[in-house]
Amino acid sequence: MQDTIARIRRFRDDRDWKQFHDPKNLAVSISIEAAELLELFQWKTGEEAGRYAAENKERVAEEIADVAIYLIELADITGIDVEEAIRSKLEKNAKKYPVERSRGISTKYTDLK
Amino acid sequence: MQDTIARIRRFRDDRDWKQFHDPKNLAVSISIEAAELLELFQWKTGEEAGRYAAENKERVAEEIADVAIYLIELADITGIDVEEAIRSKLEKNAKKYPVERSRGISTKYTDLK
Amino acid sequence: MQDTIARIRRFRDDRDWKQFHDPKNLAVSISIEAAELLELFQWKTGEEAGRYAAENKERVAEEIADVAIYLIELADITGIDVEEAIRSKLEKNAKKYPVERSRGISTKYTDLK
Amino acid sequence: MQDTIARIRRFRDDRDWKQFHDPKNLAVSISIEAAELLELFQWKTGEEAGRYAAENKERVAEEIADVAIYLIELADITGIDVEEAIRSKLEKNAKKYPVERSRGISTKYTDLK
Repeated sequence: MQDTIARIRRFRDDRDWKQFHDPKNLAVSISIEAAELLELFQWKTGEEAGRYAAENKERVAEEIADVAIYLIELADITGIDVEEAIRSKLEKNAKKYPVERSRGISTKYTDLK
Repeated sequence: MQDTIARIRRFRDDRDWKQFHDPKNLAVSISIEAAELLELFQWKTGEEAGRYAAENKERVAEEIADVAIYLIELADITGIDVEEAIRSKLEKNAKKYPVERSRGISTKYTDLK
Repeated sequence: MQDTIARIRRFRDDRDWKQFHDPKNLAVSISIEAAELLELFQWKTGEEAGRYAAENKERVAEEIADVAIYLIELADITGIDVEEAIRSKLEKNAKKYPVERSRGISTKYTDLK
Repeated sequence: MQDTIARIRRFRDDRDWKQFHDPKNLAVSISIEAAELLELFQWKTGEEAGRYAAENKERVAEEIADVAIYLIELADITGIDVEEAIRSKLEKNAKKYPVERSRGISTKYTDLK
């Protein structure tokens, strides 16, 4: 992971792009790239999307990478450790979605009984 | 990273949520979470966003984690190694954005001179 | 429509919000509101989404309104007539998607045969 | 407006696309098009975005139209009158954002003092 972060930094700094990469612009870019990823599955059913992903792994990998690059960069400039943030969020989510009440149910926690 | 993937899988499988997590639904969720991250910076200037992120690191970390969790899960179910995908995309981007032509310029590669 | 635009302007100007509503911030807000609309259908199948929309018309109407308000405001401050823009775009789309080649097919025009 | 709705319906029905246009797929498409609109202003300051919009009115009009078309279609199939929904939402927002407490301030209503 440290090596990945270093590569992302180097790519940005070689081009002197840090001046554009404030948290807001990075969040904007994450949303734009997320939509490009979503576009791969536009109009498809869940099943068709699964088939498409299996047959177009490289295309999906590229769009995932685009989101991930800006996400890692945003975490990096704000001093956030992504893997630690994930662990901590999963623990929080575990309280919001207790296993016994959320098993097999996709309901949002605010509507859980 | 393997440990992070294992935690995400366990969280999902404990709740029997794999049935909902096809590539399309995960891409939809990535977009939704990306927008929640962006909402933190809504109406702010780049500078104000930087200040907000510094003062609200935990809030930003949580939203980054939400995007990252679904992104890692999508990569996992489609057999994609996120870090390899990033390396490979950075190499591709390096060709689209040659250092000498893109330094200090935020222009999209299709419009680069 | 003119009355709707006038109401949106008045709401904004009564609060002296024009200073925040530049085209970029409005586009950011359109994306955020679009994601809130999408969240209503998160994890649902197309059929379930149809049922949800029928049973929660007011909720859906509110989220549609949130997107529409910022969209109309963006058009207004850039001097764009939304209905004229729609007519003109439908004509352009009609050339990209000729009836005989796109009937019953959801393929993107760049991939149409 | 009735004429605009009729044109949107005709475009869809000539191509037999109603089968794909359930509320979820339309909400997905609204998000995708919203991101394409946002991409026009990616990396720009608010001021630069204003200049760009003035100089590229047709480009902006096309992206606004793309969002509007799917939004109007979603409202149409769920029996929602967009202009009525806007009026009703503006009234609701007026209560969430009282003039005297929100003037000149971009704070979200949940954080308003």
